[in-house]
Amino acid sequence: MVFRFFPKTHNFFDLFEKQVSHAVEAACFFKEVVSRGCVTEDALSKMAAIEHQGDDVAHAIIDQLNKTFITPFDREDIYALAKELDDITDMVNNILTRLRVYDIRTVDKNLVEFSVVIEQSVRAVSRAIGGLRNHKNSQVVCDACIEVNRLENVGDAMRDRVLSELFANSKDPIAVIKWKDIYQDAETVLDVCEDVAHVVDSIMVKQA
Amino acid sequence: MVFRFFPKTHNFFDLFEKQVSHAVEAACFFKEVVSRGCVTEDALSKMAAIEHQGDDVAHAIIDQLNKTFITPFDREDIYALAKELDDITDMVNNILTRLRVYDIRTVDKNLVEFSVVIEQSVRAVSRAIGGLRNHKNSQVVCDACIEVNRLENVGDAMRDRVLSELFANSKDPIAVIKWKDIYQDAETVLDVCEDVAHVVDSIMVKQA
Amino acid sequence: MVFRFFPKTHNFFDLFEKQVSHAVEAACFFKEVVSRGCVTEDALSKMAAIEHQGDDVAHAIIDQLNKTFITPFDREDIYALAKELDDITDMVNNILTRLRVYDIRTVDKNLVEFSVVIEQSVRAVSRAIGGLRNHKNSQVVCDACIEVNRLENVGDAMRDRVLSELFANSKDPIAVIKWKDIYQDAETVLDVCEDVAHVVDSIMVKQA
Repeated sequence: MVFRFFPKTHNFFDLFEKQVSHAVEAACFFKEVVSRGCVTEDALSKMAAIEHQGDDVAHAIIDQLNKTFITPFDREDIYALAKELDDITDMVNNILTRLRVYDIRTVDKNLVEFSVVIEQSVRAVSRAIGGLRNHKNSQVVCDACIEVNRLENVGDAMRDRVLSELFANSKDPIAVIKWKDIYQDAETVLDVCEDVAHVVDSIMVKQA
Repeated sequence: MVFRFFPKTHNFFDLFEKQVSHAVEAACFFKEVVSRGCVTEDALSKMAAIEHQGDDVAHAIIDQLNKTFITPFDREDIYALAKELDDITDMVNNILTRLRVYDIRTVDKNLVEFSVVIEQSVRAVSRAIGGLRNHKNSQVVCDACIEVNRLENVGDAMRDRVLSELFANSKDPIAVIKWKDIYQDAETVLDVCEDVAHVVDSIMVKQA
Repeated sequence: MVFRFFPKTHNFFDLFEKQVSHAVEAACFFKEVVSRGCVTEDALSKMAAIEHQGDDVAHAIIDQLNKTFITPFDREDIYALAKELDDITDMVNNILTRLRVYDIRTVDKNLVEFSVVIEQSVRAVSRAIGGLRNHKNSQVVCDACIEVNRLENVGDAMRDRVLSELFANSKDPIAVIKWKDIYQDAETVLDVCEDVAHVVDSIMVKQA
C-alpha cells in the first residue's frame, strides 16, 4: 500500500478545467441565442442543463476540498474559484431566463455586443484556469488575467453608453425597466470574470 | 481550578438555536402581516424588535467566536452561519419596510404564497440548525437541507411566474417597479436560506 | 544582515491610512459636485483619478499581504478592510457616473443631505482606521465605530423617507427609476462604511 501525501490533488486542476469548460459552453450558447433573438423553451432547457453540469462540478470541488488536507493552493482560493466560476454560468443562465420572463423577442444589437465580450472574457478566464497547472505557464495566465480586466472596463463603458442611450431615447418606462436589468446583468457577468482573475492573480503571487 | 479546554463551546449551539428562533418568529409574523394586507406602525415596530433581538444574538456569537480558541466547527462556518441567519431576519424586515415605503395596502395573493414558502424554508433551516448539536441527527439535518434547496427552486419558479404575469398584465409602470422589488426580495430570502443550508451541509461533510 | 521577523508590518497601517484618505477625498469631492448640481466631464475625470489611486493602494495592500508571513492582525481582516475601503471609493464614483448616465442636471436637496452624511461617515471611518495603530487609541476607535453605526441608521431612515416621498409625489416613472437607484446607491455607501466599522470592531476585540 502506498500512502499518498498529496491525495489526488491533481484532481483540482481537472475539476476546475471541467467547470470552466461549462462556463465557456454557456457563454457561447448565450451569444448564439441572443443573436437569433427569441428565447425558446428548448434554449432555456439546454442552458439550464449546462448550468446544472457546472453546478455538479462545483459541488465535486467543494466535496474534494472538504476531504483533502493538502491542497495545491490555499483552501479559500479553491473555494472562491469554484464559487465564482459557478456564478458565471448562473448569471448567463439568469439573463436567458430574464429575457423569457420579460418576453423579449427581438434581436438587440447592444446585447449581442455584450454577448461577444462575455464570450471573449470567459475564454480568457478559461486560459487563466488552464495555465494554473504548471508554473511554466505563468505568462499565459498573466496575459489572460490582464485581458479579463481589460474586457471588464470595456463592459463598464458599454453599459454606461447603452444606459445613457436607453434613458435618452426610450419613452416607454416598462421597456426601460426591462433593458436596464438586462444590460446590468450582462455587465455583472464581466465583473464576475474579473473576480475570478483576481483570485487567479493572488494564487500566482503566493506561489511566486 | 479546572482548566476548560473546550471553554463553553456548547454555547454556540444554544446561541444558533436562539438566533434561528428569531428568524422563525420573523417569518411567521411576516406571513401574518401580508395575509392581513396592511403594514401598520405597530407591525413595523414589532418586526424591528424581532430583528433587533436577532442582531443581539449575532453579536453574541461573533464576540464568543473572537474569544474562543477551540470551536465546535470551523471558525469561518460559525461566522457565515451567524451572518446568514442574521440576513434572513434582516431581509424579512426589509420587505415589511418596503411595503410601507411603497404604501402597499392590499393583500397580494402572490406575496402571501411567497410568505408561506418562506416560513416553510425558515422552519427547515431551524431543523437543520437544531440537528447540528448531535451527530445522531445527521439524517434530520440532511433532510432539512434538501427541503431548503427544494423550496429555493420553488421560489425561483414562483418569482419567474409572477414577474411574467406582472409584466404581461400591468400597464402601470410604478406598480411594476414596486412589485418587481417586492417579489425579488421575497425570493432572496429563500436564497439566503439556501446559503445557510450550504454551510450546514459543509459542516456535516467535514465532520463525517 | 538583520533578519526582520516583522518585515515592515507597520506598512499596513501606513497603507490603510493612505487608502482611507482617498475615500475621504472622494466623499468630500462628491459632496462638492452634488451641491453644484451638474456632473461635468472634468468632475468625472477627477473622481475617476481618486478612485484609481485608491485602487492602487488596495493592490499594494493585497500584494504586501501575499508576501508577508506575520501580519499585525488577522489576514482575513486585512483583506476585508482593503476590499471594503476600496468599495467606499468605488461606490461614490459609481453614483457620479450614474448621475451622468441618467443625465441629472439639477441640485437635489435629498442627495446633498446624503452626501453630508456620507462625508461624516467616511471621516469617522478614517478616525477608526487611524486609531488602529496604537492600543492607547481604543476609545477613539470605539467612538468612531459607534458614530459610523449611528450614521448608517440615519441613512436608512433617510432613504425610507425620500423613497416614500418619491413614490407618493412623482408621476414620472422614469424619474422614479432614476432616483430610486441614486438614493439606494447613496445609502449603500453608508452600509459599506458600517461593514468597515464591523471589521475594525472585531480587530479590537481580538486584540483585547
